[in-house]
Amino acid sequence: MKKVAIIMGSDSDLPVVQKAFDVLNEYGVPYEVHVYSAHRTPVEAREFSLNARADGFGVIIAAAGKAAHLAGAIAANTTLPVIGIPVKSSTLDGLDALLSTVQMPSGIPVATVAIDGAANAALLAIEILSVSDETLVVKLKAAREKSAQKVLDKDKEISATYKLK
Amino acid sequence: MKKVAIIMGSDSDLPVVQKAFDVLNEYGVPYEVHVYSAHRTPVEAREFSLNARADGFGVIIAAAGKAAHLAGAIAANTTLPVIGIPVKSSTLDGLDALLSTVQMPSGIPVATVAIDGAANAALLAIEILSVSDETLVVKLKAAREKSAQKVLDKDKEISATYKLK
Amino acid sequence: MKKVAIIMGSDSDLPVVQKAFDVLNEYGVPYEVHVYSAHRTPVEAREFSLNARADGFGVIIAAAGKAAHLAGAIAANTTLPVIGIPVKSSTLDGLDALLSTVQMPSGIPVATVAIDGAANAALLAIEILSVSDETLVVKLKAAREKSAQKVLDKDKEISATYKLK
Amino acid sequence: MKKVAIIMGSDSDLPVVQKAFDVLNEYGVPYEVHVYSAHRTPVEAREFSLNARADGFGVIIAAAGKAAHLAGAIAANTTLPVIGIPVKSSTLDGLDALLSTVQMPSGIPVATVAIDGAANAALLAIEILSVSDETLVVKLKAAREKSAQKVLDKDKEISATYKLK
Amino acid sequence: MKKVAIIMGSDSDLPVVQKAFDVLNEYGVPYEVHVYSAHRTPVEAREFSLNARADGFGVIIAAAGKAAHLAGAIAANTTLPVIGIPVKSSTLDGLDALLSTVQMPSGIPVATVAIDGAANAALLAIEILSVSDETLVVKLKAAREKSAQKVLDKDKEISATYKLK
Amino acid sequence: MKKVAIIMGSDSDLPVVQKAFDVLNEYGVPYEVHVYSAHRTPVEAREFSLNARADGFGVIIAAAGKAAHLAGAIAANTTLPVIGIPVKSSTLDGLDALLSTVQMPSGIPVATVAIDGAANAALLAIEILSVSDETLVVKLKAAREKSAQKVLDKDKEISATYKLK
Amino acid sequence: MKKVAIIMGSDSDLPVVQKAFDVLNEYGVPYEVHVYSAHRTPVEAREFSLNARADGFGVIIAAAGKAAHLAGAIAANTTLPVIGIPVKSSTLDGLDALLSTVQMPSGIPVATVAIDGAANAALLAIEILSVSDETLVVKLKAAREKSAQKVLDKDKEISATYKLK
Amino acid sequence: MKKVAIIMGSDSDLPVVQKAFDVLNEYGVPYEVHVYSAHRTPVEAREFSLNARADGFGVIIAAAGKAAHLAGAIAANTTLPVIGIPVKSSTLDGLDALLSTVQMPSGIPVATVAIDGAANAALLAIEILSVSDETLVVKLKAAREKSAQKVLDKDKEISATYKLK
Repeated sequence: MKKVAIIMGSDSDLPVVQKAFDVLNEYGVPYEVHVYSAHRTPVEAREFSLNARADGFGVIIAAAGKAAHLAGAIAANTTLPVIGIPVKSSTLDGLDALLSTVQMPSGIPVATVAIDGAANAALLAIEILSVSDETLVVKLKAAREKSAQKVLDKDKEISATYKLK
Repeated sequence: MKKVAIIMGSDSDLPVVQKAFDVLNEYGVPYEVHVYSAHRTPVEAREFSLNARADGFGVIIAAAGKAAHLAGAIAANTTLPVIGIPVKSSTLDGLDALLSTVQMPSGIPVATVAIDGAANAALLAIEILSVSDETLVVKLKAAREKSAQKVLDKDKEISATYKLK
Repeated sequence: MKKVAIIMGSDSDLPVVQKAFDVLNEYGVPYEVHVYSAHRTPVEAREFSLNARADGFGVIIAAAGKAAHLAGAIAANTTLPVIGIPVKSSTLDGLDALLSTVQMPSGIPVATVAIDGAANAALLAIEILSVSDETLVVKLKAAREKSAQKVLDKDKEISATYKLK
Repeated sequence: MKKVAIIMGSDSDLPVVQKAFDVLNEYGVPYEVHVYSAHRTPVEAREFSLNARADGFGVIIAAAGKAAHLAGAIAANTTLPVIGIPVKSSTLDGLDALLSTVQMPSGIPVATVAIDGAANAALLAIEILSVSDETLVVKLKAAREKSAQKVLDKDKEISATYKLK
Repeated sequence: MKKVAIIMGSDSDLPVVQKAFDVLNEYGVPYEVHVYSAHRTPVEAREFSLNARADGFGVIIAAAGKAAHLAGAIAANTTLPVIGIPVKSSTLDGLDALLSTVQMPSGIPVATVAIDGAANAALLAIEILSVSDETLVVKLKAAREKSAQKVLDKDKEISATYKLK
Repeated sequence: MKKVAIIMGSDSDLPVVQKAFDVLNEYGVPYEVHVYSAHRTPVEAREFSLNARADGFGVIIAAAGKAAHLAGAIAANTTLPVIGIPVKSSTLDGLDALLSTVQMPSGIPVATVAIDGAANAALLAIEILSVSDETLVVKLKAAREKSAQKVLDKDKEISATYKLK
Repeated sequence: MKKVAIIMGSDSDLPVVQKAFDVLNEYGVPYEVHVYSAHRTPVEAREFSLNARADGFGVIIAAAGKAAHLAGAIAANTTLPVIGIPVKSSTLDGLDALLSTVQMPSGIPVATVAIDGAANAALLAIEILSVSDETLVVKLKAAREKSAQKVLDKDKEISATYKLK
Repeated sequence: MKKVAIIMGSDSDLPVVQKAFDVLNEYGVPYEVHVYSAHRTPVEAREFSLNARADGFGVIIAAAGKAAHLAGAIAANTTLPVIGIPVKSSTLDGLDALLSTVQMPSGIPVATVAIDGAANAALLAIEILSVSDETLVVKLKAAREKSAQKVLDKDKEISATYKLK
């Protein structure tokens, strides 16, 4: 199975990114994690990206805050699908990271998820791998059903508790 | 080869979306186009999404403006990767469509590209298909080189025209 | 009397939404509460909406955060008036939910109230029911007078405390 | 049948508001139109609002731009449901009118629709009247079906024109 | 001497507004304080405004949050200068109150100060009264000099503490 | 009578500012106009401000775009009331000028009007002068009545044209 | 004399960037112009940056729109001062480019100027070179005086034209 | 060696600005610190700026919040490069300070860094001095390498801890 790479721009992004690890562990999808900064370690970020497909990766997830260039910098050096997670930092409530990640120029797309949306980034990576992997389709469907069931259980509980006849 | 679906929320989105057709034509990736509204034709949007994987699609692209729910509504009914194109409309400069598309809740990801970024949506779809299709990798790399060459040609021309020694 | 339905997209919205229960209890307007997600339980959300009028509901209130599609998804499946409460979540201060709720395309309106404005959503529902229910008009007027009196009491107290002659 | 009132803050809002007239004409719902400014004619705006229910109105629609206080000023003087249309003016792309209309304090709700969303304001008014008027329910459902059919016709045309096998 | 009126839309605005009292106390400018809501007590707000000039007021300060209509509602009923203080509330960081206060339509100006800028509102009121009151001019100049001296004292202290030769 | 000064940061602001001249001409309030830039002619801007009160001015209006420092720079050098007009320029729709003008630090207020709100700036100046000038009060009241009448005339015309019985 | 490099991310930025050429020509500061994209020609952008100091450059100006990574990508590969020009594109009015350029993480600064502020970028480059070049200081001062004079000439003309005594 | 000046608009900015001192201490670049307010001590701010170059300064850093005019006011009175640090205050999350600092009019540039970006302001100042100081180039390169190494160390640790084979 193709691996998923998760790159964060700084180790301070770890608490946000860990939710992606949880999802990938749950699905049994192999992954590697790296800390590469588009600005502080541009060489390593580039090297990793150039070799990622040959190294067995199928998708790259990149998380960064502020002027979040990481996902774009990786996408510039690979033709693998790159998923960007804009990370909220101490100012501007994540809007800077969102716009820096999503507003990519024509030619180099970044698949952007919600601010701090690491769980969804992992799910999107799994959906991408599922295009050619039937076992993941089965797992994804089961997870959707489980997630729906959780909502319906809550519905049962809450609709029984709150009402006025 | 898996097909790409392109869904627009209204036929008024056609001028934006057509750039996606151009890219897919160029790469020879088969695609189908539909007009389904999350709000005006929810049944058809849902039916299409539920059957998309079985119908041979590998990726779904959804374009919508304003409170752009289309990509999310499709993603809710398929485990295929769904790419969202936020379309700029007459107010708020596309910010409403961007936030409505990208800020998806945990569990249902949408791979969001730039506002009006239809060409990149198509490229992202091709990158996703390329995970299990070597011929697309070759084409993507060639396109990247061609695109780089175009920039370098412009560089040659402009750097020769403008300078002061 | 027609009932009010209150749907929240996630049980995490409960603390915000509870203020609506308080108002409806105070007015003695019957209501039911449900947890349905536009994305995680689209079928149940749709079923509920399709049957709501026949099931005796007069208004539906829907609360959701982030890319808040819930109110719109419900409105797509009923011709009852639908009131949307944009819920503030951990990023963007509620702007994402507000724009996702209010910027509905032509044909499917959502009556949007302030971010986290659950009390007003309930009041608006009661005003809507009051169009054909004179007893509610009386209660609404009394509540307005009481609310005005509260302001005037505060005015008395504060204007006596703070001044310089 | 209860009447709908449409109040605009300035006659310059007429081009935006006229779409509401079209919808009400189409549904045969009686309406009156007024130009009252929350700031320039506060007395008349207030008088109208105080008497609106007694004068046979069931819903009031108010359209205003910039620091759009009109809907709130009307809502302060009636317990009828008030629908606010934020009107885009020459600066800030309608965001000022949207926030001034929707962010109402607890106690006085305004049912806000999209920026320049006059057609939806009229539809919402009709949905509100439909709570106690079965003939309007029938018309609303028919309109929904017609609108869906229009999308599906466009789908047919566009899906036949654009594709690659 | 003309009095200053300070109106707050809700007693919850008191902590913000109190800084205005401090400034007016310091300058010995007589003032009265009231709690009037544009929406909950429109009659009292209007009565106060209509009579304010005759009642000996020279300036009115109005503080309100969210869809902050108070300053505009007062300005609509007086030709006295009205100063608006946009108050930050639990969402949108004060932007809603700022736009609702400052973006007034032509004909009814509101002199808007910074979000939560109660001290400056009081100073502006004093500056306005100073146009025809020489003793206030003297006090304003003295305060400016004192404020400058405070900055210069801090400068002395900090410039001595932090440096590298 | 005290004069009004109107300072613009650049002669390109003239089309916006001219509406202030019209209002002042209409009221017969004497005024002078200057082009002083906070950044390009800081000395002249400062000199003017320091002497403004002694030179017979009662209010200063300052109009500037982008990082609009002009009103603040003038306010720093006078204790006269200073009115700021944020001018919309080619980017950001006036938001930059608005925030740069209104968000003044404690101690130096600027009375900010709407983006491009030159007419209201002039009216506010007249209201300020009216605090000690009864003839202006009479004119202001007359203008308000005339403006109300204009709205009511439009109301008559439009309410007769558009309605459905 | 050290040269100035001007890099644009796309030849479509040329109309914006040309104002920088004009300024540099006027000051007689040698410059070179290049088109390098952070995403389409990352290798060339990097190569240029790594060698820029050795190649005789003293400052690098980088102009880009949307998710404007160019200035940051250059700054990551040189310790020369890098000036970023955020370029307004078809959506979001330049806010995306501004935040993507200015919100750089600690360690890699970008000296950001106003949206589309190419003239100022060139002036800033000249100011930087002037730190060790006395002839540029003289020219900068002369230009400031000329610019002030231009404002004062306009002041003369406009203050004579518009006034009311 | 030329000195760096660090001016803050208020001593409350000290916690933000101190990170700049740390960087300058680390590089052994001489600096002086002052508290000058553009609005409260305009004379001293101006005096300092006019003399800065003659007093041996090579760069001026200015930090201010809200309607942050300080950097622009300094830049208006010197031809030295001026670096602006927008400081986040209690409302609007720093956006006001950012726009007030960066959106400077043509002729008077301010080199703006990220909101609260004091460390980068100091680094940018050092980069500017490095244009004519080879020893700083060596130190800057060493710091970059050290910073890269820190990222790579974190990468080693994190990539070893988190993975799934």
